[in-house]
Amino acid sequence: MDKILRINMGAEGGPKATEEPLRDYSGLGGRALTSAVISKEVDPLCHPLGENNKLVIAPGLLSGTTGAMSGRISVGCKSPLTGTIKEANAGGQASQVLARLGYAAIVLEGKPKDDTLYKVFINKDGVKITPDNGLKMLGNYDLVDKIKGEYGDKIACICIGPAGEMKMSAASVACTDMELRPTRHAGRGGVGAVMGAKGVKVIVLDDTGMKMRSPKDPEKFKEANKAWVEGLKKHPVSGEGLPAYGTNVLTNVINEAGGYPTKNFKLGRFDTCQKISGETQAETETARGGSATHGCHRGCVIKCSGIYVDKDGNYLTKQPEYETVWAHGGNCGIDDLDSIAMLDRLDDDYGLDTIEMGATIGVAMEAGLAKFGDAEAAINLVKEVGKGTPLGRILGNGAAVTGKVFGVERVPVVKGQALPAYDPRAIHGIGVTYATSTMGADHTAGYAVATNVLNVGGSVDPLKPEGQVELSRNLQIATAAVDATGMCLFVAFPVLDQPDTFQALIDMINAFYGLNLNADDVTELGKSILKNERDFNTRAGFTAQHDRLPEFFKKESLPPHNLTFQVKDEDLDTFFNW
Amino acid sequence: MDKILRINMGAEGGPKATEEPLRDYSGLGGRALTSAVISKEVDPLCHPLGENNKLVIAPGLLSGTTGAMSGRISVGCKSPLTGTIKEANAGGQASQVLARLGYAAIVLEGKPKDDTLYKVFINKDGVKITPDNGLKMLGNYDLVDKIKGEYGDKIACICIGPAGEMKMSAASVACTDMELRPTRHAGRGGVGAVMGAKGVKVIVLDDTGMKMRSPKDPEKFKEANKAWVEGLKKHPVSGEGLPAYGTNVLTNVINEAGGYPTKNFKLGRFDTCQKISGETQAETETARGGSATHGCHRGCVIKCSGIYVDKDGNYLTKQPEYETVWAHGGNCGIDDLDSIAMLDRLDDDYGLDTIEMGATIGVAMEAGLAKFGDAEAAINLVKEVGKGTPLGRILGNGAAVTGKVFGVERVPVVKGQALPAYDPRAIHGIGVTYATSTMGADHTAGYAVATNVLNVGGSVDPLKPEGQVELSRNLQIATAAVDATGMCLFVAFPVLDQPDTFQALIDMINAFYGLNLNADDVTELGKSILKNERDFNTRAGFTAQHDRLPEFFKKESLPPHNLTFQVKDEDLDTFFNW
Repeated sequence: MDKILRINMGAEGGPKATEEPLRDYSGLGGRALTSAVISKEVDPLCHPLGENNKLVIAPGLLSGTTGAMSGRISVGCKSPLTGTIKEANAGGQASQVLARLGYAAIVLEGKPKDDTLYKVFINKDGVKITPDNGLKMLGNYDLVDKIKGEYGDKIACICIGPAGEMKMSAASVACTDMELRPTRHAGRGGVGAVMGAKGVKVIVLDDTGMKMRSPKDPEKFKEANKAWVEGLKKHPVSGEGLPAYGTNVLTNVINEAGGYPTKNFKLGRFDTCQKISGETQAETETARGGSATHGCHRGCVIKCSGIYVDKDGNYLTKQPEYETVWAHGGNCGIDDLDSIAMLDRLDDDYGLDTIEMGATIGVAMEAGLAKFGDAEAAINLVKEVGKGTPLGRILGNGAAVTGKVFGVERVPVVKGQALPAYDPRAIHGIGVTYATSTMGADHTAGYAVATNVLNVGGSVDPLKPEGQVELSRNLQIATAAVDATGMCLFVAFPVLDQPDTFQALIDMINAFYGLNLNADDVTELGKSILKNERDFNTRAGFTAQHDRLPEFFKKESLPPHNLTFQVKDEDLDTFFNW
Repeated sequence: MDKILRINMGAEGGPKATEEPLRDYSGLGGRALTSAVISKEVDPLCHPLGENNKLVIAPGLLSGTTGAMSGRISVGCKSPLTGTIKEANAGGQASQVLARLGYAAIVLEGKPKDDTLYKVFINKDGVKITPDNGLKMLGNYDLVDKIKGEYGDKIACICIGPAGEMKMSAASVACTDMELRPTRHAGRGGVGAVMGAKGVKVIVLDDTGMKMRSPKDPEKFKEANKAWVEGLKKHPVSGEGLPAYGTNVLTNVINEAGGYPTKNFKLGRFDTCQKISGETQAETETARGGSATHGCHRGCVIKCSGIYVDKDGNYLTKQPEYETVWAHGGNCGIDDLDSIAMLDRLDDDYGLDTIEMGATIGVAMEAGLAKFGDAEAAINLVKEVGKGTPLGRILGNGAAVTGKVFGVERVPVVKGQALPAYDPRAIHGIGVTYATSTMGADHTAGYAVATNVLNVGGSVDPLKPEGQVELSRNLQIATAAVDATGMCLFVAFPVLDQPDTFQALIDMINAFYGLNLNADDVTELGKSILKNERDFNTRAGFTAQHDRLPEFFKKESLPPHNLTFQVKDEDLDTFFNW
């Protein structure tokens, strides 16, 4: 994993691949690498869909090793949704396979001269780029089926659906899971549109003949990994809650906390949320012969995913995540799991961010295009996106565009990106993250819900402004570092609570690379990532005035706590003072 | 004209009008007043369609007097198109009538509790606000007909069409002309959407029983006005070119200069532009029994407008302006005057900015929604806007949104507002204005074309970067001051070339208000307006990075001169150094 694969899609005579050593980027992985490349090489004022943007796909520092949970892949670019720098990451198999193929990153550059669509095949023998217009407008499921027919099933795919081809700002980059289902998405920020603009439909990875990456100190690595796995298994969130119910375990918890955004952020509780809770979902899956416990990549020991099957027991989609269930569920007043699963399936197939789409349908409902609670209407709206009708094009470009087109005032976005499943008026720490993240509204950037609601990493009162900036800052710094390792973010629960588990992670990195890092070094890595990202955004024209929640969070109070967002602007502006 | 009329559309128990003295705003008019109110009273981070935005409608300092050309009215708000402060101004009768009614400004505030639509009637006895949902979705022509039936024809109307009601970002505020036709529009920046968000369909003004405003020194004023009119009449642009051919006299001139943006800014010359030139237009109008010389308001001595009639001699629309003929013509590859006139009529009726709409259709053509040159398709696209279909909603929100929704890279906007009819790669001074104006791309903010191409106010080579920032700066300062007076911007030609005509304008202001201003004071007024506006924009999050042309003007060179935009970023950034 010591080289970068650059593919110039706009080269004279057709796309051209070249390999180069890491050079300046040595020692970086995942988000640290994608953000370094974008910040250094991309003009912050370029058009996100133009030849001067780049799409960087990077496994983490520990991806491709035997280290547990190391299968996240980072996808970076200038975002067509937000205009900021962007890193979206995903699980699935791609990260491990790409790392074993020896690549620290694939960088897609330039832009094809015409609208030819390409597939890229990478194996131990090198890179092959082939035009294949027969793939045009295939959904991710059909696409992967076709690719399997051609390349067999010992592969992993990184691909886009019709939304990415149509360059929609809500388009995701899909990665296939262990069963070669295109269900793990780098969802946020329209990274799929940038891949579409590069004319790449699918990157097929085959690591046949390649070995697991080997540590500098195999013994120490094995030892550290053992402590690591033990730590993950003993924490109640990563060891019990997530395996049993998946991320959707949060529905009841967040609803109870009064921070479950309901009907486009009008209420903090959803009356019938138990119908779509993780508990109900797991029970439904199990009863129908699906599965409530499933890993998205080899090496996962948390197994928060699952298999959602329909009433007849046929596979419909992977177990929808909490964010998805909320976005298409409570946020749209919908309490039917089968409808939500269908929406998840459609999003995955078209290649769309489920959070952005759910928020968009909520805004569309606010605009009167459908009634809150009307699941059939919601499904039909998402189908419009797949068809690429004018209405579908609007929706596929996300909540901000939909709000603008239909003249809606209550649009829950920061820097153009939809807010996820936690209302900042009831969970103030996450509001700070939404406002200040370099990514636009993003819960994963600094998951203050952990400390505000779950009492992980300490406890900060979610209803008060005090301490939230510091909490979010610490979490954003730590998260940036975790996003560099390739580790699934859910390791953060034990890492925050159990010092020995945090130490095990550092030990793994040290043993693998022959380093001698300590906790401060990890913090410095996180800070340097955020600094790179912030610097890009500043050069793109972002200011403190963009680090704000939408006006209505300051004007409308949210039941049941009846609070507006309490953190002052001047306090938000201290976020980057470190 | 010493009071402000505030109408709180969100007051308990229904809209409420109150009058107050000018206080802090004393001595201000037109753009100086609208920008002062917005900058002081509106939260720069408010939602443009929300209760915290305000719509300020202000006649100029000399409006309502016998001073020639003093009939411009300013409409200001935070723009839903650009997010910046906005002043759009219009001719027609409203300015004179409102000024004679004694109002320096109408300020629409708040937001109605429901979607009731209101009409506002103002005469010598006061203000009456009445709900009238029967006006909903009327085009401006039908609306004014209905209003005439109710209030007679001794009125002036300020109104919105369906586009404003649908809160589209390209929606204009229409003012009626001397024949009570809704043809004079404060077009830019979506001011009509803000009026729509306030729930006001029409403001009916009746100055029956009111007198012409009287100067402090009537004799001196009369004398100055005489010199003023003489100055206007003796300059070749205001005295000959504009009366004979209207603004469309520019088509051949700008085409010859190689700066006529053709087919969405792909070329600098349009082969068949003579078919839509001012000369052809005037000839057509005259031959059919229309008129090529017509004033838009009483007191106009330039008479650059006209009446465009169809092949049967029936009124179709006012003489389309140069910008309109370009936007719907050359920019879309269309060279048929009747089609362009129909598009102008539709825009006026729906209440849309013709520049934004033409640029939007150009982007839609680039996206493949219609072919360049297909006039029928262009007409059908604009009709979609009137119908409010999803496609129409996209287009009605302007070029930037349309480009985003359809994934188009070549979108000619600055700060979200479409570029007008001069390509900055061939006329560099106007490029500086587009980039640096507080308004987004706006030719009227500092019409460097005058000095770059027409040799008015000196001469600066249009093809070179040297001197353009200084030129644009001086013009933007002077223009801001002119926009405060209520004077039509076309007075700028003689004012720039003839020192005695400039002096006559200052004499008029001094005689009217009993002041003793000199040229420096006028400059200071202009600077202070720009400063207010810039300050608002800074607080709204705008930076030097937003003072840029779209990337493609730096990447693609424009035939026939084969230049990219040459002014350096660091030079643009010196614009506000004074």
